[in-house]
Amino acid sequence: MRLLLALLGIPYERRTMDVVDRSNRPEVLGGLNPSLRVPTLVLDDGRPLGESGAILWYFGEGTRFVPDDPYERAQVLQWMFFEQYDLEPSIAVVRFWVAYSGRPDAFADRIPERMAAGNRALAALERRLEGQQYLVGDWYSLADIALYGYTHVAHEGGFELEPYPAVRAWLDRVASEPGHVPIDA
Amino acid sequence: MRLLLALLGIPYERRTMDVVDRSNRPEVLGGLNPSLRVPTLVLDDGRPLGESGAILWYFGEGTRFVPDDPYERAQVLQWMFFEQYDLEPSIAVVRFWVAYSGRPDAFADRIPERMAAGNRALAALERRLEGQQYLVGDWYSLADIALYGYTHVAHEGGFELEPYPAVRAWLDRVASEPGHVPIDA
Repeated sequence: MRLLLALLGIPYERRTMDVVDRSNRPEVLGGLNPSLRVPTLVLDDGRPLGESGAILWYFGEGTRFVPDDPYERAQVLQWMFFEQYDLEPSIAVVRFWVAYSGRPDAFADRIPERMAAGNRALAALERRLEGQQYLVGDWYSLADIALYGYTHVAHEGGFELEPYPAVRAWLDRVASEPGHVPIDA
Repeated sequence: MRLLLALLGIPYERRTMDVVDRSNRPEVLGGLNPSLRVPTLVLDDGRPLGESGAILWYFGEGTRFVPDDPYERAQVLQWMFFEQYDLEPSIAVVRFWVAYSGRPDAFADRIPERMAAGNRALAALERRLEGQQYLVGDWYSLADIALYGYTHVAHEGGFELEPYPAVRAWLDRVASEPGHVPIDA
């Protein structure tokens, strides 16, 4: 999301939430997003929007990052849904447990299953990227932006990208796009 | 998805996959969807599309089920991403374990956490639907279609809808929409 906003030159104010102590979420997010998840966007006129994929779509539709063709648009969404269903719950969650929770031991017995799921997600990404430069068509789209976030920091969760050469090449490709800015996902 | 296709009168051929024995997925789905998930759609011209949310969007865009306003469109996607991230992995998964896996005991130790997550999802849905008829705006949209699927069979997983009166009223409202057809999710 920050990557897209930077690419599009859209200014925003960022307010961070504690990802360990979530006790203030009902107070801060209650009126904005019933699911109490981050990110939650508040537009200049006060209207809220939740879910990273929906926020990406809001800003991306009508730009070069969302194609006009109905099938290609749906493919962009396919990979964004894949990110939320398969990649985030495995790769981002393991990374959080291992590197950010402050108590990785508490999650030790749940890590192997999620690591396996993360490797299945990386393998799916690898199959998709074998022989093509970007996730949808042959251009840089919202799908690449959405998937780049947690994939490029997967190593922080202990994921080894060595077996996924097409994924590694794609990460380099995204990072060398004009206007790319470093993000920590 | 079947509900949307019925509402739009779009004919399709359905091929079912075993949800317990998944060993034939690489063979059947390998060339169509790198994530090997169902549903995977194949268009008449042979092009494949994965992820239920992407398939819904493909058929829904341009119909009365997807609004024209950019903010409302993004809200529809917000609830579709919520469904895939919060509701499906809890409510649909518990229902599968309890009612369809053939070996509920094998999942017994993982059920309480997913039941809690499912109730958090239902509570989020309840907060959203308090005081409004549908998830986005005041009309029946793709968001309602996407969320109805597993919510209306949540009881099969042991979820009790008694604490969620707005959700129950909304389920009745969706089921009485013109053109509604019974689906088993």
